[in-house]
This record gives sequence, C-alpha cells and structure tokens, in this order.
Amino acid sequence: MQDIVYGRNNVYEVLTDENRSISKIILMKGIKDNGKISQILDLAKKRGIVFQFLPKEKFYEYKEYSHQGVIAYASPIKYTGLEEFLNKKGENKKVVITDGVEDPHNFGSIIRTAVCAGYDAVIFPSRRNSAVNSTVEKTSAGAVNHIDMIMVNSLSGAIDKLKNNNFWIIATDIKAKDNYYDIDYCNMNFAIVMGSEKEGISSTILKKADFRVKIPMFKNFDSLNVSNAASILIFESVKQILQKTEHGV
Amino acid sequence: MQDIVYGRNNVYEVLTDENRSISKIILMKGIKDNGKISQILDLAKKRGIVFQFLPKEKFYEYKEYSHQGVIAYASPIKYTGLEEFLNKKGENKKVVITDGVEDPHNFGSIIRTAVCAGYDAVIFPSRRNSAVNSTVEKTSAGAVNHIDMIMVNSLSGAIDKLKNNNFWIIATDIKAKDNYYDIDYCNMNFAIVMGSEKEGISSTILKKADFRVKIPMFKNFDSLNVSNAASILIFESVKQILQKTEHGV
Repeated sequence: MQDIVYGRNNVYEVLTDENRSISKIILMKGIKDNGKISQILDLAKKRGIVFQFLPKEKFYEYKEYSHQGVIAYASPIKYTGLEEFLNKKGENKKVVITDGVEDPHNFGSIIRTAVCAGYDAVIFPSRRNSAVNSTVEKTSAGAVNHIDMIMVNSLSGAIDKLKNNNFWIIATDIKAKDNYYDIDYCNMNFAIVMGSEKEGISSTILKKADFRVKIPMFKNFDSLNVSNAASILIFESVKQILQKTEHGV
Repeated sequence: MQDIVYGRNNVYEVLTDENRSISKIILMKGIKDNGKISQILDLAKKRGIVFQFLPKEKFYEYKEYSHQGVIAYASPIKYTGLEEFLNKKGENKKVVITDGVEDPHNFGSIIRTAVCAGYDAVIFPSRRNSAVNSTVEKTSAGAVNHIDMIMVNSLSGAIDKLKNNNFWIIATDIKAKDNYYDIDYCNMNFAIVMGSEKEGISSTILKKADFRVKIPMFKNFDSLNVSNAASILIFESVKQILQKTEHGV
C-alpha cells in the first residue's frame, strides 16, 4: 500500500523523512518554482527517487487533492510502538492523546501544533479516531513525519502504561473545576488528552486522569473546535516551560 | 439572496438570531431527535416559520452539505458597520481582525473561538479574505450569529479608525521580538490582527501596529495553522482578564 502525498510542503516534508520510502514523484509540466520545487528535486536526486514531469491532463485523476502540481507515492508513515517510545531516553516528555477525534482536519491540525510545540508523540486509538490518511498528512503540513505517531488498540491500556512510566495524565473536561493554566507543566512527563467534539473524553479514560482541566469561556456558547482547544493547552505548556528556562529556574 | 444554513446546531443558532429572517426549514422524515430537533421546531413555531418534513430523496440536491437532515433558508447575516460598532457603549472591547484568511474553515474557526472568548467583533476585508458563506457559518458552529461581523473595504482605513477610538493594535509577526504573552491585555480596547498563512500580515498593516508579537516555537517547523495561532492569542487574553478579575484588581 502506498499513500498519496500531495502539495509542495507535504512532498518536501515526506522527502526529509528517511523512514518513508518513495516510489515516484510526479510534477506538472511548466510548474512555477517558488523555491520549494528545486528543494524537492534536489532531495529526490540525493535520495535517488524517480521523478517525472507530466502534462496537466494527467493530473485530472488527482483532482480531489489540492496538489499544487506535485504528488508523491510514499510508503505509509511508520508508526512508533508505545514500548519503543517509552524506552527512548529523555526526560520531561510531552505527549498529546486524542480520544475520538474523527475529523481528519482537526487531527492533522493537532499533530501540526504538537510538532511546533516540540512535543514528543501523538497517541491515538485504532478505532473511533481518524487514521493517518492523506488528508491528515496534508492538514498537518507534513508534521506527521516529525513526531512519534503511536496507534494503540486500547487507549485505556496505553494510559496505564504511561502512568507506570511516570507520566501525568491531564484530561480536558468541561465540568472540571480547575482551569488549564492552574497546572504546572514543567519538570514532568505529561500527556494531554483531548476528547471528541461531541462526547468529550470517554468516562473510563477520564477516571484515570491525574488532572482534569477546563478552558474557561466568557460566553455560554457551544464549545471550541477541538484543534483550537488543543492548541490553547499545548501552548500554555510551552509558555510555562520557556518562562522557567528564561528565568533559569 | 438566501443562504443555506445546514446542520442541527447551525439551524438552531440561526433561529435564535432575530436579525435573520428565515423563509423555511426542511427536515428529513423520520429524523432522530437528540433534543435539538424539538428545540428547532419550538423556535420555528414561536417565530411563525414554515417547516416541512421531506423524504430522504429530496435531500439529494443538498448532498454537498453535511446537513444532518436539517436545512434552513435564511437571509444572509447582517453585517455591522464599523461606525455603528464604535458608537456602541462599552469599554475594554476586544476585536479580532483577519487580514487575508482565505480558507473558510479557518475563518469559521476563528469566529467560533472569538465568540467563546466573549470578543465583541470580527473585522475582515471584502477582498483577499473568505466571505461569510455557508461553510464559514457551519464551521463557526453558528457563532457568526453571536458577534458583530464587520466587513470593510479598506482594512488600513479601519485600523486608523480603531486607533482614533483608543484601540491598541496587536499584530502577529514571526519576526517580532516580543512573545504574545508579554503583553498586558487588560483594561484596554484592543484588536488582534491575524495574517494569511502564506504571507502573514501585509506590510502596511504591520506598520500601523502598536505591538508586534510572535508565538515562540520549540521546533523550527512550518508555522501553526492560523486558526490555532489565533486561539492561542485570544485565550491568553481571556486568561489574563479572568485572573485579574479573580484577584479583584
């Protein structure tokens, strides 16, 4: 099975990931080079990957993708095993867990935010959650290639393992008393759990959480989009960690 | 011109907005009521709006919309004039400005976040920015009905007017020295300007800004999705304001 990776940035990012084997790259004849195209061609040459320039008509079959004239056929992203991740050296590891984020755009956005924030992994269940497909790869702007993506059969079991490995579990819950900024994210391994937009985090997972936090709202309106909610928590942790570092604490 | 408003929450939200006249509501025969449907029917009766139950086949023409069996034909949202907004009473007004956010999903998400955060208005230019269409209304989860939406021909002119009315202009700029959390958002009128994902904020607008701020990244990766970036700034302001209120400052 090969994934279709489309768009300039995405194809570039997939090329930078040595774990992804790429069978070919196709480019539209006469494509304008904004700098990214030459970078793509350079990398393809370096890695010995075949590329072809094809006329516009040949791209008709890819019309469902917003491909910007560049498409790569790549092996699916390589998932990391949870054990493998836990065995990696490093301290103060930061993880996002999605429990039922079904919309691929939201899932992709969360992965992108996690990478920008220097997080170490995204853990997600094999059911009731978007898989890592072409849309997720595109929406993540290629970020799926820059972070450990860990797919698990049982999220509940994964959380137990994380807890046994000194991870603190932070769950978002609109009924929580504490606000997300009341937690100290520094000097610990932690995992932030985001639930589905409709139902939130499942009750078994919620019970296992060490902290439950909410995002306070000024207006009693429908909740935030889940990827926006995730980025608010994730960047609160970034801010706290940067501020501690700057002040030499 | 009538807008098609689709989806349970959206149709409910548009019904709550007395400024939107609704010519009819159609529902799919045998639709399951999760509670929202009766609320929709109650409101429709109260407002004297015609509704019809139609067989599944009739919904075929709406297949491009994820309508969940409910569609309303409503007048377009009523924009607020900038002068009208500025003349409204109130202090410490909070505004988001989008300068070239073309993706309707991102634009809708930003509006949704702004409403959750209790912001007063979204200002956007009539060109080079998504208009308020059905996709935006849907992605915003109906939030477009709960905030002043101000469309302007000249963003530059609008910013001058805001400045003359004691608004501070905060622009996001990856080259900025200050971080977004170095600003005090309390006790002032302010507008946060978000630029396009590709090009950021236009240079004329950037020059008019009182503050330029960046979101610090841990990893040198492609930037954040613009709606995620917006929510990080917006909720930093919410946090600061809530913390001041709680401490009685």
